[in-house]
Amino acid sequence: MRSYTASGDSNTWSGIITSMFRYTLTARSGRARAGIFHTPHGALLTPVFAPVGTQAAVKALTPAQVAELEASLVLANTYHLYLRPGDERIRTLGGLHEFMQWPGPILTDSGGFQVFSLGRTNRIDDDGVTFRSHIDGSTHRFTPEKSILIQENLGADIIMAFDECADPNDHTYIKKAMERTHRWAERSLQAKTRPDQALFGIVQGGVDPHLRAASAAFISSLPFLGVAIGGLSVGETKAEMHATLDVVAPLLPEDRPRYLMGVGTPEDLIEGVRRGVDLFDCVLPTRLARHHAVFSPEGRLNLMNAAFAGDDRPIDPTCDCYTCRTFSRAYLRHLIAAKELLAGTLLSIHNLRALVHLMAEMRQAIQAGNFEELVPEYLRKWKGNAERHRQRNQSD
Amino acid sequence: MRSYTASGDSNTWSGIITSMFRYTLTARSGRARAGIFHTPHGALLTPVFAPVGTQAAVKALTPAQVAELEASLVLANTYHLYLRPGDERIRTLGGLHEFMQWPGPILTDSGGFQVFSLGRTNRIDDDGVTFRSHIDGSTHRFTPEKSILIQENLGADIIMAFDECADPNDHTYIKKAMERTHRWAERSLQAKTRPDQALFGIVQGGVDPHLRAASAAFISSLPFLGVAIGGLSVGETKAEMHATLDVVAPLLPEDRPRYLMGVGTPEDLIEGVRRGVDLFDCVLPTRLARHHAVFSPEGRLNLMNAAFAGDDRPIDPTCDCYTCRTFSRAYLRHLIAAKELLAGTLLSIHNLRALVHLMAEMRQAIQAGNFEELVPEYLRKWKGNAERHRQRNQSD
Repeated sequence: MRSYTASGDSNTWSGIITSMFRYTLTARSGRARAGIFHTPHGALLTPVFAPVGTQAAVKALTPAQVAELEASLVLANTYHLYLRPGDERIRTLGGLHEFMQWPGPILTDSGGFQVFSLGRTNRIDDDGVTFRSHIDGSTHRFTPEKSILIQENLGADIIMAFDECADPNDHTYIKKAMERTHRWAERSLQAKTRPDQALFGIVQGGVDPHLRAASAAFISSLPFLGVAIGGLSVGETKAEMHATLDVVAPLLPEDRPRYLMGVGTPEDLIEGVRRGVDLFDCVLPTRLARHHAVFSPEGRLNLMNAAFAGDDRPIDPTCDCYTCRTFSRAYLRHLIAAKELLAGTLLSIHNLRALVHLMAEMRQAIQAGNFEELVPEYLRKWKGNAERHRQRNQSD
Repeated sequence: MRSYTASGDSNTWSGIITSMFRYTLTARSGRARAGIFHTPHGALLTPVFAPVGTQAAVKALTPAQVAELEASLVLANTYHLYLRPGDERIRTLGGLHEFMQWPGPILTDSGGFQVFSLGRTNRIDDDGVTFRSHIDGSTHRFTPEKSILIQENLGADIIMAFDECADPNDHTYIKKAMERTHRWAERSLQAKTRPDQALFGIVQGGVDPHLRAASAAFISSLPFLGVAIGGLSVGETKAEMHATLDVVAPLLPEDRPRYLMGVGTPEDLIEGVRRGVDLFDCVLPTRLARHHAVFSPEGRLNLMNAAFAGDDRPIDPTCDCYTCRTFSRAYLRHLIAAKELLAGTLLSIHNLRALVHLMAEMRQAIQAGNFEELVPEYLRKWKGNAERHRQRNQSD
């Protein structure tokens, strides 16, 4: 199924190629990469940030608004859609693209992360996981085969191998979970049948550099069309995250996209891109928006603060989003105080656009060859937007 | 300030004219009227339906979405904006158009209706009303002069005289309230200073035809630029509403727009237009949307119903709104079940567009001279969308 050509020291090459998918690396700047990932629903210019649409909707936004802020890839959560409205239902209705009317590429996760993080796991064994629904308490079972079947029913362009994400601080268990993840990776590949979906493997291993190196080597040896780095942004420190990326990224195949799951803040994106990551997703921009917080060059602002009640400036005068082009902080603060739903919509548009725009800026710099010199400037601009609270789960 | 020319039996004439406002009647069909009302922020093609943006936002919609569904006039509530964020604050920030970024005409009510209907009136006397804020219980006082001052600070194109809306079933009190409304109408006119705002008077009198006739004659005799019919859709029967319109509308000046406040359902709009009303507003379309109900030619549908879970049709295949052009009932039902905010947005777009489109259709028929023959067809199409629950208040 897979064939690829790679010319190691050229600046442009084509990586993995199937009849449906092709990854082309177009430029490098240090370890940072720019590329194009072709999918059946269009090309992704990488590095790219994917807004999260947990329940087949980016919260509070129409697909037209998501497209207007120039997001290209949207993530949906397998666990949630399996439970409601059901993957069979979505297949009958024409698949996820038709159902949610997102014409571009979609990525679904494997459901594993939610099964573990929503804390209702009944039993985990080598075959799979039994868990209770967070909606009605009913009992369900996911295996690698079941996860792939569900993701084939949903029909996203990029689907994920079923993995186990363990507590990074539980060093004994982390090895066991990694080994299980490797066996599940092979079973996920075996179970896959649709040629119009790219299956990505997931590197685990907590924050142990030896386990991470072993996992990176193993997952990279399998015929996945992309490799994800899982198990980060789940409780480890920033330094541990960076150290882990420093170990893993250089071991991943150059010719396939790399995806850092569930990350991040503006700084996380900058730190990830400079370490060679191509793809990111995170609930943070939309979740913060619903809690009245916005990314800005002045740092993260909580617009509920009374100081903004008379502030006639936009959130960020350098931002080109609909919200910043149109509304004052004073108006946004009023909407928040008055509990108007529109506040969530307008703040989500800004936060997502800030990250999508930052990715486009970094991509351009990588193409132009001056990304490395610009990194300090990016970090300076976005400092003060650090993640204050760890995200408990990667669905929104 | 006011001058007008009217040629009674011509089909086209210009009514009220100031340097800022002009109403032109362009066609009649029976008692139904089509016209153009020019305001400093653009022309309203009448008959017209105004979405309600109680707190300076049409709930769950961006101004871009409101404009896309071709709404031309938006209503905002003086009572709410006076309390939060404050009319002085809005004036300082450039007025309501600038604040909420609605470039078209805006109408504000007088605040009187909310003072009474939110049920926190402390004292009402001939001078004005003392009431407590529904937000923090603080005590405030509205008089006709105060209402006009607030509305001048807000800066809408159309502003309303301060009136008292009494329980239509309290026949003794209704006369007293009407007389007070008349004195307050004169004081509202006296208090007005801005030439770029059109002040409308309000006819009261409950469902008593003699009081209504007296009120219509009195209010019409004053130099208002438009006349509203208040005190309907507040607890009377449909038959009483129609009978009251039949009494009042023929007594109103032909050369000024007539506004039926707080109405309505699709049927109410049809029944109002055929009786000569030019302007309507109602919270119903957006409020229903937040309760999962939509207008449709099949009658009012509650999309939370499980019957829609697999329904791949749009809400209304004849509707041209973004929601109907894009999404299935099954998807909308899923959004509702999953408590996604997007449901309220998409259902509001449809319900508002249904009314805006119905008004445009009726206007076209009046222009074409065949409105009267089409009324039975309009009523047939929209039957089953009757108002099941009376609206308690006219803010949303």
